[in-house]
Amino acid sequence: MRTDLCDLLGVAYPVLAFSPSEHVVAAVSRAGGLGVLGCVRFNDPAELDATLSWLDAETAGHPYGVDVVMPGHVPAEGAPADLEQLIPPGHRDFVERTLLRLGVPPLSVGEQSRSGVLGWLHSVARSHVEVALTHPVRLIANALGPPPADVVARAHERGLLVAALAGRADHARSHVAGGVDLVVAQGYEAGGHTGEIGSMVLVPEIVDAVGEQVPVLAAGGIGSGRQIAAALALGASGVWTGSVWLGTEEYRSPPALREALLRAGSGDTVRSRVYSGKPARLLRNRWTDAWTEPQAPEPLPMPLQNMLVAGAHSRLMAAGDPSVVPMPVGQIVGRMNRVRPVAEVLADLVAEADETLNRLRKLG
Amino acid sequence: MRTDLCDLLGVAYPVLAFSPSEHVVAAVSRAGGLGVLGCVRFNDPAELDATLSWLDAETAGHPYGVDVVMPGHVPAEGAPADLEQLIPPGHRDFVERTLLRLGVPPLSVGEQSRSGVLGWLHSVARSHVEVALTHPVRLIANALGPPPADVVARAHERGLLVAALAGRADHARSHVAGGVDLVVAQGYEAGGHTGEIGSMVLVPEIVDAVGEQVPVLAAGGIGSGRQIAAALALGASGVWTGSVWLGTEEYRSPPALREALLRAGSGDTVRSRVYSGKPARLLRNRWTDAWTEPQAPEPLPMPLQNMLVAGAHSRLMAAGDPSVVPMPVGQIVGRMNRVRPVAEVLADLVAEADETLNRLRKLG
Repeated sequence: MRTDLCDLLGVAYPVLAFSPSEHVVAAVSRAGGLGVLGCVRFNDPAELDATLSWLDAETAGHPYGVDVVMPGHVPAEGAPADLEQLIPPGHRDFVERTLLRLGVPPLSVGEQSRSGVLGWLHSVARSHVEVALTHPVRLIANALGPPPADVVARAHERGLLVAALAGRADHARSHVAGGVDLVVAQGYEAGGHTGEIGSMVLVPEIVDAVGEQVPVLAAGGIGSGRQIAAALALGASGVWTGSVWLGTEEYRSPPALREALLRAGSGDTVRSRVYSGKPARLLRNRWTDAWTEPQAPEPLPMPLQNMLVAGAHSRLMAAGDPSVVPMPVGQIVGRMNRVRPVAEVLADLVAEADETLNRLRKLG
Repeated sequence: MRTDLCDLLGVAYPVLAFSPSEHVVAAVSRAGGLGVLGCVRFNDPAELDATLSWLDAETAGHPYGVDVVMPGHVPAEGAPADLEQLIPPGHRDFVERTLLRLGVPPLSVGEQSRSGVLGWLHSVARSHVEVALTHPVRLIANALGPPPADVVARAHERGLLVAALAGRADHARSHVAGGVDLVVAQGYEAGGHTGEIGSMVLVPEIVDAVGEQVPVLAAGGIGSGRQIAAALALGASGVWTGSVWLGTEEYRSPPALREALLRAGSGDTVRSRVYSGKPARLLRNRWTDAWTEPQAPEPLPMPLQNMLVAGAHSRLMAAGDPSVVPMPVGQIVGRMNRVRPVAEVLADLVAEADETLNRLRKLG
């Protein structure tokens, strides 16, 4: 299963693997895919710098990428303290009452609450780009909106490829007009921020829109080799995966999250604004359900919503209760039924894709 | 592109085509697919009988099927006059006010208003089955819920195959346990009644659940040969198509509907309960938007919602305004950009699927 993408990226398999975990990223890149580190969680650029130095060593010369989030429109920008002022007290009350009702205890002494994710602010995302440009990164991806022109230019100066995610064909066209080298067509099935058009429809639509200019990767609903072969049938040059790596040993889930992921079926996710303020697919559970009740407030815009729920996220994770973990994940969560090493998952994806291509050969 | 399904159904191509139009059904069956007539619109069994007699002649010995709707749960059953009593006056007022606001005139003298669709009542659906069993029908499909045991038994006695649509793997398992011969895995992208799991995820999940016992057809998002090849990669034995036939000459759309279909992009649909009371994907327009406004009432359960809006549907269609046509359609509506004959559409689907299989051969 080699495509042109393999030569472009210098990898054995046309499989990109997004993960917030550097352990997953390193393992994927060593096994012949391209690991892509999600940077949005790094509020401190120095911490990202240290993590990329670790990756430089652990990937041992295999290429890897980074994923930053520079949304086209963030309604509020500013210092965290100023932004906190914009959160209505009624929203804070709702969060507090909901945690109480769900039986989620406060953090114990010594447990540290997360700050809100600030990586969705342009200023912070740009600090991620600055750090990435000082490391031997092969690919820089923007997960929301078109990458700014100067970022594209500076990445290209250093020989990096620039990718951007698109949930609609017009977004893909504007990415390519802005100099992007790869488009990730991300369908409705995907975990995290995602649009409303299913992969089966979106991928060929984006291939028809920009496929003659740049390679298109299929994302959303890709967790098996048959799904990779289907993506190639739709005209993609490779796949962008994410959720499938949450079920690996290297991801190092806390037990409650692991149990929730293994237990969930494909119908147990929901597309909601409660995580970040923009629509993102999450595990559906008692926490997300609470936000659909009549007395629940509307989620706030990005980045305020995540600042609002950041403390709650820490408590929900620390509670050790699988029915409340706050977690972005795609519909392929239904396929996750045991925890395996990254290399084994990747080898299975490739083997099943090859088997599928062989099976299709006989239908001609 | 022959699969086992071709022998089972006695067709040249593993392409099933659902349509409420007997003209489309006949043309598909004559061209080597399997046309499947949607029966839900026939409130009068005698009219269905006459239509099937026409089809018997027009298909000239090529097999065809029928699609009936026997939902697992219909909250209200009864004579139309009694059911009308269950519709709250506030809902009727909302519909009337909305039509006024949208500039939709009353029907002119001589134009006839549709009755509500009663085919969603078990009693009416069973009359469809009775009629179908007196014709040389090859396949009877149930579009919502498991077909009743006696219907399966009587169909099998007469040598008919029974199919059922499923939007979740557990539904597929219960269909097969009930004796169904074919399962249609219908993803979120589909037009009409549809679930929340995208085809990319749903199809392999249902193949894994029941594929060793019965053939699985992929539905939802199938409007090109690449999408057919992708469905085969996911493990389907063929495809169930619907929306793609709305763009054909034989469908005989009124001009406003035709314009709306040709103009719509893949993002211009919405999954909503306003058409029938159960979630169905429709063209998104000023009519569906009106039901999302804060003052709009919740749609009624099936079959009351369709009875509520039946008169409005007649007026919305007669208005000749593309921005208000009430129409179930899938996300592949974005691919519809000119009106063509059925035979040409089917030939293109098959040719592109074959080309795609050839392209994949070179990746091995």
